[in-house]
Amino acid sequence: MADFELHILGCGSALPTTRHAASSQIINLRDKLYMIDCGEGTQVRMRHARIKFSRLNHIFISHLHGDHCFGLPGLISTFGMLERRGNLFIYGAKEVEDYLQPILNRFCRGLSYDVVFKVIDPSDQALIMEDRSLKVYSIPLRHRIPACGFLFEEKAKEDHLIREMVDFYQIPVSLRRGIKQGNDYVTPEGEVVPHSRLTRPADPARRYAYCSDTAFFPGIVPVIKGVDLLYHEATFVEAERVRARETAHSTAAQAAEIARLAEVKRLMIGHFSARYEDDAIFKAEADRVFPGTILAREGLVMQV
Amino acid sequence: MADFELHILGCGSALPTTRHAASSQIINLRDKLYMIDCGEGTQVRMRHARIKFSRLNHIFISHLHGDHCFGLPGLISTFGMLERRGNLFIYGAKEVEDYLQPILNRFCRGLSYDVVFKVIDPSDQALIMEDRSLKVYSIPLRHRIPACGFLFEEKAKEDHLIREMVDFYQIPVSLRRGIKQGNDYVTPEGEVVPHSRLTRPADPARRYAYCSDTAFFPGIVPVIKGVDLLYHEATFVEAERVRARETAHSTAAQAAEIARLAEVKRLMIGHFSARYEDDAIFKAEADRVFPGTILAREGLVMQV
Repeated sequence: MADFELHILGCGSALPTTRHAASSQIINLRDKLYMIDCGEGTQVRMRHARIKFSRLNHIFISHLHGDHCFGLPGLISTFGMLERRGNLFIYGAKEVEDYLQPILNRFCRGLSYDVVFKVIDPSDQALIMEDRSLKVYSIPLRHRIPACGFLFEEKAKEDHLIREMVDFYQIPVSLRRGIKQGNDYVTPEGEVVPHSRLTRPADPARRYAYCSDTAFFPGIVPVIKGVDLLYHEATFVEAERVRARETAHSTAAQAAEIARLAEVKRLMIGHFSARYEDDAIFKAEADRVFPGTILAREGLVMQV
Repeated sequence: MADFELHILGCGSALPTTRHAASSQIINLRDKLYMIDCGEGTQVRMRHARIKFSRLNHIFISHLHGDHCFGLPGLISTFGMLERRGNLFIYGAKEVEDYLQPILNRFCRGLSYDVVFKVIDPSDQALIMEDRSLKVYSIPLRHRIPACGFLFEEKAKEDHLIREMVDFYQIPVSLRRGIKQGNDYVTPEGEVVPHSRLTRPADPARRYAYCSDTAFFPGIVPVIKGVDLLYHEATFVEAERVRARETAHSTAAQAAEIARLAEVKRLMIGHFSARYEDDAIFKAEADRVFPGTILAREGLVMQV
């Protein structure tokens, strides 16, 4: 079972190439799947990556440029042909619904399941989804149109009971859950055994941040501080810094600077412009600011 | 220079697989390109096939199912980013415009070129496009929604002047075009030299017919009689004949029967359902009725 994995389905920018596909990623958190962006061709790349369509229930759309959302009509149609039953939740700006609903009305009458739009405000940093294992927050970005990134935060886990202590004190099953969650144990004789003696601390909750598309914007630093993995767009390199500013994109050096300021554990860069034949140029530039930068590529799977 | 080539970009049916892409084809007639259908991912497959985007000016859409048209928004956007100038003509039912126009309004404001919708009636067999080298006719099909195929017919070519006769009679340059087109030559002395002595007959004009998606429908036989190449859908095999009828698709045997009745020179079948792991089953079935049936596959290039 995957614990907390990131699958890169596409990490190119708007112009299609044979080297990169349009933006899409899958988070696999203990076999529940969450998609970020859905460029054209995403469903086929899911097939190639052998990702189970049926486990995907939540799709987050960063902004309404075609290379981030033109794969949605095909994916939604395919789910219908597969006679999916569970709701599919789509999180995005109001315009995502405005774009998709007429297409669904035309192509997806009588779907076997419901597409549920969860309208979010990309200019707002907010908790936009929560389930048993995960919280997802929006991260306002700076782009030509309203856009936001997403912070995926595992929920705090319960502490681990120490087996030997449970046996020694013969702690009833009914009390164990509460102790995992922080309770002390009071013996029948009235002795208080503190939580800390009975448990080992939980594994730290992991965090993944997706920031694409965006100009260099240090305003996001406090939100993504110390995340285990940051995906930041790097459409250009410094030689095209002016072009990056004009189009509200980042250079590899700027992505690395954000990672450095936010003291993230690891940085992955992507959304590479079609103008560069070799992605090594992005890594060389980013590494000078944030050593060990990871280049996104289609098919890459990372543990968060 | 390509003379009259067919490129298969995608020949799968609605459900995506790793084996086949959604429907799309390119006709290359003396380096002018014509597209038939445009399923999701078509623009990337054009890149892989090294097909020049700038030479494509006409797109024909058979019907408004997603696997035949979900690639249009991305392709049109990409043409805009490439700063295309010439008009792009899209031929299809009124619903094609109804589907696309709102998407263009949202994603493609200020395009560098015009998308011109040419509304056709799929229930009508009619000349829908004509240029210097080609005529295209619609072929009404039988599907769950209005659908038509397309007949691509080279224009009759001019006869070839016989060099030796031109020299012998010293035929003036100004008269040669007319002789190619059928005139006799009258010498200054009044001798009439008949056209047939001065020329060799032109190569016969070639015809290509695309018939997808459709139920078995012998009504198309007179229209496609004797074509040089017929592409006919074969979504199923005879074991799923009932399913084929219910979904208004054809079996491989039915496609071959149409080819046999129409006495076409060659048959290519495609639009294969995702349920079959091995396309050889389609060929085996079709070959029994129309020997030498060709299986479509992505990347295949055929001379018409």
